[in-house]
Amino acid sequence: MGKVYLVGAGPGDPELLSLKAYRLIKEADVILVDNLVLGVKDLIPEDKKVIDTGKTAGAHKFSQEEINELMVHLASRYDKVVRLKGGDPFIFGRGGEEAAYLSEHGIEFEVVPGITSAIAVPSSFLIPLSYRGVSSSITFITGHEMEAKEESASINWNAIANLRGTLVILMGVGNLANNIEQLLKHGLRPDTPVAVIEKGFTPDARIVTGRADNIAGVARSEGVKPPAIIVIGDVVQMRERLNPNPNPNPSDNEDNE
Amino acid sequence: MGKVYLVGAGPGDPELLSLKAYRLIKEADVILVDNLVLGVKDLIPEDKKVIDTGKTAGAHKFSQEEINELMVHLASRYDKVVRLKGGDPFIFGRGGEEAAYLSEHGIEFEVVPGITSAIAVPSSFLIPLSYRGVSSSITFITGHEMEAKEESASINWNAIANLRGTLVILMGVGNLANNIEQLLKHGLRPDTPVAVIEKGFTPDARIVTGRADNIAGVARSEGVKPPAIIVIGDVVQMRERLNPNPNPNPSDNEDNE
Repeated sequence: MGKVYLVGAGPGDPELLSLKAYRLIKEADVILVDNLVLGVKDLIPEDKKVIDTGKTAGAHKFSQEEINELMVHLASRYDKVVRLKGGDPFIFGRGGEEAAYLSEHGIEFEVVPGITSAIAVPSSFLIPLSYRGVSSSITFITGHEMEAKEESASINWNAIANLRGTLVILMGVGNLANNIEQLLKHGLRPDTPVAVIEKGFTPDARIVTGRADNIAGVARSEGVKPPAIIVIGDVVQMRERLNPNPNPNPSDNEDNE
Repeated sequence: MGKVYLVGAGPGDPELLSLKAYRLIKEADVILVDNLVLGVKDLIPEDKKVIDTGKTAGAHKFSQEEINELMVHLASRYDKVVRLKGGDPFIFGRGGEEAAYLSEHGIEFEVVPGITSAIAVPSSFLIPLSYRGVSSSITFITGHEMEAKEESASINWNAIANLRGTLVILMGVGNLANNIEQLLKHGLRPDTPVAVIEKGFTPDARIVTGRADNIAGVARSEGVKPPAIIVIGDVVQMRERLNPNPNPNPSDNEDNE
């Protein structure tokens, strides 16, 4: 039996892959990729066997159960199976469930962490999720989880709304208006700065900002669509202080990043 | 004037550096490193100019102000200055302050995200910080911040203790007993699983586990010392299900990771 590597592919910029992930891609006998790591695909040698489990054209997307079974099947055929996952495998990526499935089916595995989009996407727009004296905690949650109100593991709105730190909502654009309304109802300051960052690390990446009490309308009128990362907290304002190219006598170099 | 790159060096394993960080190290005219990235130092070419701002022997550690001034000075002398920071620059690493200082002093800069120890260290002991149906949120906080009770940005104990998600405390070993006591007083379940992971990504890495109501005693009797990362939440128990080498007929290969 082969070994499965659950590998974090980072936020989408191929250069933000780890040296280890890159080595494993080159050594792999077969690679499973999802649609979150499109940019990273360019790093995969052309002669590699690649299965794209994130393919959605024609509704042929693999279910999680199918992916799990596929990993076990491939491990019985190949020595080195690389399962490339967007961001970090253990941050809202079902990597834990995939690891549990492999373990239950007697398949050796290893988890390789990656740079999570939850941190890197705000960073790419110069929002530091922590900043001394501004935010003392960082909380990640998914918009999906925020809808699961009845479950025992569901969130405590009162706690989330009153953390006085930075709140990062992943996969939360579809439900933005409802979630913000709940947070405001439970005590979030209406003037809390909010940023919605769409399509991070793609050529179409953009940021839309507002306050808790108007961001839902701003995002709607700007036509913001998934994927997007929402940052709620005073750190959003820090980006105004972090001008990356502040030289008072700039050259006419036009390809600043 | 040169440009300063605030570069995340990851959790300490040199292979967990990003391709971009590695490229910038090779291209740099001068590199500032801190003591959190010891393992990564092996990747720095021998002929590079390196300043270790984390040097503590003989109490010669640089202050944050000295580091800030040094970056500005170096940017006036060299084209490419790389400031290598442990983990991710914007996750409790003062990267935000360094970026603000550079911006205020007219120095061009770029932030390169890294794999944060807060995620990667638990991952290396097979603790997934999120897991569907087990934890719906992840909160990062520093033990240091938890002591700053009077500040306006200080934490809301009641909220932190009742998140029903995963709580990760960085730099919190020294104050573990007090912080856990506060969390219990504000409603944290006494039987909440807790892991303390010492010296992650070093040969001496180890994990100590317990429950909220006994972990302080366990950590003391085991002699746990900084640096360590504390994980509080039901996800700690998931590692029992995630056996990385579950093959029922294992070979006598002894160098499992």
